[in-house]
Amino acid sequence: MATLPSAVSVVEVGPRDGLQNESALISTADKIAFVDRLTNAGLRAIEVSAFVSPKWIPQLKDAADVFAGITRRPGTRYSALVPNLIGLERALGAGVTDVAIFTAASETFNQRNTRRSIEESFATYRDVVREALSAGLRVRGYLSTAFGCPFEGPVSTEQVVALTERLLSLGVFEVAVSDTIGVAHPGQVRALLPRLLATIPSTRIALHFHDTRGTALANVLAALDFGMATFDASAGGLGGCPYAPRASGNLATEDLLYMLRGLNIETDVAIDAVSDAALALAPQLGHPLPSRYTQAR
Amino acid sequence: MATLPSAVSVVEVGPRDGLQNESALISTADKIAFVDRLTNAGLRAIEVSAFVSPKWIPQLKDAADVFAGITRRPGTRYSALVPNLIGLERALGAGVTDVAIFTAASETFNQRNTRRSIEESFATYRDVVREALSAGLRVRGYLSTAFGCPFEGPVSTEQVVALTERLLSLGVFEVAVSDTIGVAHPGQVRALLPRLLATIPSTRIALHFHDTRGTALANVLAALDFGMATFDASAGGLGGCPYAPRASGNLATEDLLYMLRGLNIETDVAIDAVSDAALALAPQLGHPLPSRYTQAR
Repeated sequence: MATLPSAVSVVEVGPRDGLQNESALISTADKIAFVDRLTNAGLRAIEVSAFVSPKWIPQLKDAADVFAGITRRPGTRYSALVPNLIGLERALGAGVTDVAIFTAASETFNQRNTRRSIEESFATYRDVVREALSAGLRVRGYLSTAFGCPFEGPVSTEQVVALTERLLSLGVFEVAVSDTIGVAHPGQVRALLPRLLATIPSTRIALHFHDTRGTALANVLAALDFGMATFDASAGGLGGCPYAPRASGNLATEDLLYMLRGLNIETDVAIDAVSDAALALAPQLGHPLPSRYTQAR
Repeated sequence: MATLPSAVSVVEVGPRDGLQNESALISTADKIAFVDRLTNAGLRAIEVSAFVSPKWIPQLKDAADVFAGITRRPGTRYSALVPNLIGLERALGAGVTDVAIFTAASETFNQRNTRRSIEESFATYRDVVREALSAGLRVRGYLSTAFGCPFEGPVSTEQVVALTERLLSLGVFEVAVSDTIGVAHPGQVRALLPRLLATIPSTRIALHFHDTRGTALANVLAALDFGMATFDASAGGLGGCPYAPRASGNLATEDLLYMLRGLNIETDVAIDAVSDAALALAPQLGHPLPSRYTQAR
């Protein structure tokens, strides 16, 4: 194990991964205000929306309008998920400078989620990443279901390592190894990371945990012990779990920040400002914010 | 750091610490059924109630009736909290074989919680423990606010070590070092445990975390790394936080069990049976169970 990192980058995914899994439709103006509050809280990487078919994710159909409305702070990355070349073209048209691609680590999940095989996803992304890079964009990769699949169960370490390497070989700057359904426990983190870090620098791996079974911060701690220094989180814990209607989804940004602050790990993000950003949306969500920190304020 | 323990003892505190902090009054019959379900789930240590003034804690005024009604399984410890000799006499009259005493690590909390100083608490407990031991009882100790006090803020490591040693010197078999208000983070655990373990065997220390800010399982993980093998938890995450009305309190037993199972640490407790025990009470609580695991079932 390495020593704990002295600083951590938090990638805020609430506006995209969070809202995508919220059933209440949020107005474009409220989304813009949400992103602006997150910017002002000090977050340096915010996933703003996705350029996917509105039939897939109606919540994010206003992606271009949200990008047009937000106030960008120099030095902050504002990214959009893109599933294919059409999405990339829309993102380019909206002036997006950072995009993200995604594949699952389990075949069944990829098929159900995107109606294509993992192999087909990579064929698509080869073109998407090439186009994006030639347009001067930065590209991030997500590897979903890396700690377990709702259909297949366990996912092999070999598969996760191979797909992470393969995403990186496309030209993405970083892969967010993701516990999409919130089943990961620290034993998995401690088993997986040495395998990933055997061939991949830690600076090219982010970790994306969901708190569906309460283990997200324990998983973060396990990862910090390996020197990992980039973590995804969602303000307020926005975003549920499509496989368990009452369950919580993404790790709450403020819960992550609370623990990092305790560990003397610098983030440059104002914890209560993040909590306030989520609280401003809360009345429209139809349920309390899952963030433990925010519930305790 | 030691290697992870191969087995962990879970001390179920839901019927006492959990219900004590629930505002809805639960019937005696439902409490008895709750304890019996927890017994059947495999838990080997259950804190059933407290023999305190009904004016202090109306929820637990039926302690003797609950003890009379539960079905005891041989090998399982059923304990009661006792604040003084009067409580001990009542507990003895109810056939209780295991009692627990408690003091805070911060003077202000102890004064507000019990209207006596820490010194006065120890004077009382010297007699309580002597009487209890001479009657053949086992006595456990709680050290509250060991990771922070709502009135005084930080609590010094020296104070926690000194009071833990002092509780043990009274004759208690174990001290539950407790994060009463759920502020602890793994950095504190990693700072405190080496200090405690310098003079005290790990087998005489339990850890009692609240999940008020989401860090409970991360704290457990940090403690497991030191070989700690006894943890308190509350089925369903029963019990709120008196200092934050909407916040969650005790670490949920099933969340703890989920992580321990992932780490291949044996507990002999059936996770879904614990969750079911809490779910049976849920309709009477007036709020969803805080347990992430149970929310995701």
